[in-house]
Amino acid sequence: MEDLTNVYFTPLPDSPYVKPFRFNYTQNGMEKTWDLLEVHDSVAIIVFNVSRNVMVFVKQFRPAIYYNHIQPQDRKEKVIDTAKYPAALGIALEMCAGIIDKIKPVEEIAREEVLEECGYDVPLEKLQRITSYRAGVGVQGALQTLFYCEVTDDMKTEQGGGVDDEIIEVIEKSIPEVEEMVSSSGPIPSPPSCLFALMWFLHYKAHQFRK
Amino acid sequence: MEDLTNVYFTPLPDSPYVKPFRFNYTQNGMEKTWDLLEVHDSVAIIVFNVSRNVMVFVKQFRPAIYYNHIQPQDRKEKVIDTAKYPAALGIALEMCAGIIDKIKPVEEIAREEVLEECGYDVPLEKLQRITSYRAGVGVQGALQTLFYCEVTDDMKTEQGGGVDDEIIEVIEKSIPEVEEMVSSSGPIPSPPSCLFALMWFLHYKAHQFRK
Repeated sequence: MEDLTNVYFTPLPDSPYVKPFRFNYTQNGMEKTWDLLEVHDSVAIIVFNVSRNVMVFVKQFRPAIYYNHIQPQDRKEKVIDTAKYPAALGIALEMCAGIIDKIKPVEEIAREEVLEECGYDVPLEKLQRITSYRAGVGVQGALQTLFYCEVTDDMKTEQGGGVDDEIIEVIEKSIPEVEEMVSSSGPIPSPPSCLFALMWFLHYKAHQFRK
Repeated sequence: MEDLTNVYFTPLPDSPYVKPFRFNYTQNGMEKTWDLLEVHDSVAIIVFNVSRNVMVFVKQFRPAIYYNHIQPQDRKEKVIDTAKYPAALGIALEMCAGIIDKIKPVEEIAREEVLEECGYDVPLEKLQRITSYRAGVGVQGALQTLFYCEVTDDMKTEQGGGVDDEIIEVIEKSIPEVEEMVSSSGPIPSPPSCLFALMWFLHYKAHQFRK
């Protein structure tokens, strides 16, 4: 995962992932504009392994995080110096998640992501829908639906790690390690959706699994 | 806030807010690309009014959320039918927050946002830095620093509501109302950073203020 070379930036071509546009509107008589992106809705799943009382995370290299570590003057280099900026800077710790790019019930998409990323084959009825919210209010406003799912070691039928060219590592943390993670003074290499999921688990579920 | 007309979409011109580009890299020998945006770091502040035991929220119209309510076929209309899609669909409830676009300590920027958006004039030493995290890992990876701040009615020296052409309404919720909000089955019209902040408050602070 941390073997990173030949990093460089180019203008955005016509992209299936990032579709920026300008939103024009008149609010209370004032003409305004807002620049935003069209993005997919998504699912995220809190996976807790009750055989060993550990939370399951996915760890992966995230270009967006890596990029934000690069000093503005170094961003102008033709190729980024990966000795100065090693891949580890861009590694994120997240909940299992995926975009909704198929016409299927969200539960089914969540089930597939748990299998593909984490390797657990979970019956649909084990997926508890928690809530949904807006994944970003600035340039994105798509809906993310959050699930909670308890798994056992028996359900681990595959390796996980993603599909196609995804490079995903499955990581486990005990409840005290999760508490330590959210109490860190930061920077935590995780998105707020992951931190919300962790706090939700600590507040509503963790007591059941403490000795 | 809910007087909305003349909504239409245009291609993105050269924008100071949304700067999309393609990130090219080779990971474990595989050539890959990722499309992302350059965005500013930001601050968010949990504001709790201890005179009346209420949490302070900001409510505003968010084009990104509004856009996501519009059916794909209706997005192609020259002008969006605001009778079919009223502004209320795009109203978000968030923590006080702002981008870091000045060279100033983050605490100072947080202090200014609390004053501009919520109207409370808070001494710097009342701002408790909680943590920082990555505000999105897909197309954005900028850092958001979260603060907690207790205010009193005495500190409310201004109206709040934002600066320039911002239209922001200050909303207060009691602790039971906050609990109800995060327990909702959704969609919650808030971003995950707001939900993380609420869960953090409920888990670590709320007990001090319960009768």
